Amino acid sequence: MTRMLWRHARIATFEGNDWGLIDRGALLAEGTQITWVGAEAELPAGLDVDAEHDLGGALLTPGLIDAHTHLVYAGDRTVEFDLRQQGASYEQIARAGGGIRHTVACTRAASDDALFAGALARALALRAGGVTTLEVKSGYGLSLDHEARCLRVARRLGPATGMTIRSTALPAHALPPEFDSRPDDYIDAVVAWLPALHAEGLADAVDAFCDTIGFTPAQTRRVFDAARALGLPVKLHAEQLSDQGGAALAASYGALSADHLEWLSADGIAAMQAAGTVAMLLPGAFYHLRETKLPPVAALRDAGVPMAVATDHNPGSSPALSLPLMMNMACTLFRLTPLEAWLGVTAHAARALGLADRGRLQPGQRADLAVWSLDHPRELAARFGHDPCLAVVTGGVPCTP
Amino acid sequence: MTRMLWRHARIATFEGNDWGLIDRGALLAEGTQITWVGAEAELPAGLDVDAEHDLGGALLTPGLIDAHTHLVYAGDRTVEFDLRQQGASYEQIARAGGGIRHTVACTRAASDDALFAGALARALALRAGGVTTLEVKSGYGLSLDHEARCLRVARRLGPATGMTIRSTALPAHALPPEFDSRPDDYIDAVVAWLPALHAEGLADAVDAFCDTIGFTPAQTRRVFDAARALGLPVKLHAEQLSDQGGAALAASYGALSADHLEWLSADGIAAMQAAGTVAMLLPGAFYHLRETKLPPVAALRDAGVPMAVATDHNPGSSPALSLPLMMNMACTLFRLTPLEAWLGVTAHAARALGLADRGRLQPGQRADLAVWSLDHPRELAARFGHDPCLAVVTGGVPCTP
Ligand SMILES: [Zn+2]
Ligand SMILES: [Zn+2]
Repeated sequence: MTRMLWRHARIATFEGNDWGLIDRGALLAEGTQITWVGAEAELPAGLDVDAEHDLGGALLTPGLIDAHTHLVYAGDRTVEFDLRQQGASYEQIARAGGGIRHTVACTRAASDDALFAGALARALALRAGGVTTLEVKSGYGLSLDHEARCLRVARRLGPATGMTIRSTALPAHALPPEFDSRPDDYIDAVVAWLPALHAEGLADAVDAFCDTIGFTPAQTRRVFDAARALGLPVKLHAEQLSDQGGAALAASYGALSADHLEWLSADGIAAMQAAGTVAMLLPGAFYHLRETKLPPVAALRDAGVPMAVATDHNPGSSPALSLPLMMNMACTLFRLTPLEAWLGVTAHAARALGLADRGRLQPGQRADLAVWSLDHPRELAARFGHDPCLAVVTGGVPCTP
Repeated sequence: MTRMLWRHARIATFEGNDWGLIDRGALLAEGTQITWVGAEAELPAGLDVDAEHDLGGALLTPGLIDAHTHLVYAGDRTVEFDLRQQGASYEQIARAGGGIRHTVACTRAASDDALFAGALARALALRAGGVTTLEVKSGYGLSLDHEARCLRVARRLGPATGMTIRSTALPAHALPPEFDSRPDDYIDAVVAWLPALHAEGLADAVDAFCDTIGFTPAQTRRVFDAARALGLPVKLHAEQLSDQGGAALAASYGALSADHLEWLSADGIAAMQAAGTVAMLLPGAFYHLRETKLPPVAALRDAGVPMAVATDHNPGSSPALSLPLMMNMACTLFRLTPLEAWLGVTAHAARALGLADRGRLQPGQRADLAVWSLDHPRELAARFGHDPCLAVVTGGVPCTP
């Protein structure tokens, strides 16, 4: 088993939900796991390692976890942005062929290799910002074949990048054109597809979009019942544009996370707290859509609901490829502290993916690391439009840029 | 004279204040100047060049111009951000030793080499985002020696990065501790320092901070009179936190630009229009300070006042190192169109620095170029937290990363 040592590092372990700073620290990995973390001066004597990295005082943290992305798609939506900035209405944009249906049409028309090339470039951009674990949703295929195809593309990103990929089936993302005005028929179809996706091992979880422009709570329940029958955990796009009671619904299924949450009610918070459901905050979409209703961060904090932060990368409402920028937006727009933003992309993001083996630097955790040209981790969240990630390590293996 | 050809490029020239797109274009530079731009098929026959770059369909644009930065300083201000996010008041932060005076103390204590190393890292980060011309202000020295020292450091950035550096004297940035409660005495001193800074050739322009927490219009006039006596152009931090009539004052001195402008009045707009003063929009500070009062973009547009966009990089109110992110914020927060954002960091930014030789791709302009992994330039402004700059060229010379 390969033994790798990183030394002369300023380490932030995030143990005890605090920074857990070690001024001049060292970290030992054996194989894919961390086996020792501490002050360099206390390193066991006579340690025999295969490779040793002197970090020259750089900051060493857990690799970041982007736990909500829609990374697999084809087509460009920036024309819509341009039209909107020039004063076009949503109706005019829809008539010009914009919106999610444009992405669905482009995605269906794209080859597997084209889908993979686009997703790979985006995954590498996220990795360059420190990300080592990545959730990827389907939801632009909207047929069994195309949803399966997108999830297969997502799975290919792991070997190609070294990152851990968690794939989420999201056929209940939008209504495809062939089911126009027949949402219940579409949900019938989705319920029928899930066993096939599961049988091929394509989905680690099942998600849905519950909102006035998405699916109803009753339709969401049918998707979740189908997931439960397969033993798959669920999560939900909830309370983004209105309060549908989606977070409480998700919590009643023991959801890993409820995501967006700008319109989350006190009842929703209580239900999430009781179920241990993570609050996934997505400031990129809030910013890009110029929303003004803030998620109830103070109430979530008071209730002890763990908060995570993700990019929600997608071509329409959050075309963002930097998780550190989302940390800054979570602070600046949503009023998280820098420490909360960090826990939101490490320990709490791991929990939102059902992963107990990462998010902190301690023996037994996976050796997923990020190295930063920073003196203190708070700088990553306090600044914006910067790019201080020097290197990432996944499962003990340094990634080449 | 070296002849360099870039071909197989999608080119955005920005001629006629439009994109000026050439689908499969070529650009020829002889020495530091562009001598030919057009469709590759129309390249003069039998052209003899020293080097040829096949851009493989990448986008070629003018190099970006960041025309408002405070890049030379020492010390960290992210502790303040952290305290603020935890609910500390500005008073508590000031008592904890924060604010601009912390930066002044750290800057005065830093060696020339330490100041240069910090500024160089930041300049290279901006260059990695496509910037080839950079304005740098003093304003954290606040004594003749320290202001001169900071401007000398700024000047060293040019040879070290290949970028064109325009340095601006901003001793009237804040009141140094040794002049506590004596702002008029400090302005006497500033007026006395300017000839010395000018004699050493350290300043291309003179700036001041005119606001309730800065200097009064009367004090600003005294600084501007001193600049005018030396033949130096002026610019002004105006109408950021209140309407002091600063933009109209600056316009009455034929200012290159008036900067910030959230509280700009109709009279200010009219005066700027008449004087040809550029409106320098700084969305990074607006975002970071969570301001809500928007600059009057529609009125500036209607009046035909050219709008520029810059980072305002500084450690306190805009710790941002990406001009493309500022373009996105200018669109998303201030409602510029993507084309306006582009003109704001090219042709209009050049004008704000008094430079007529750059900002568009046409014969006679300086060969300052940026190459992007994008299909259309609007994508740079529509997306955020991405990093698509592949290379920059300054004065015909490709910069090494
Ligand atoms: Zn989403
Ligand atoms: Zn400024």
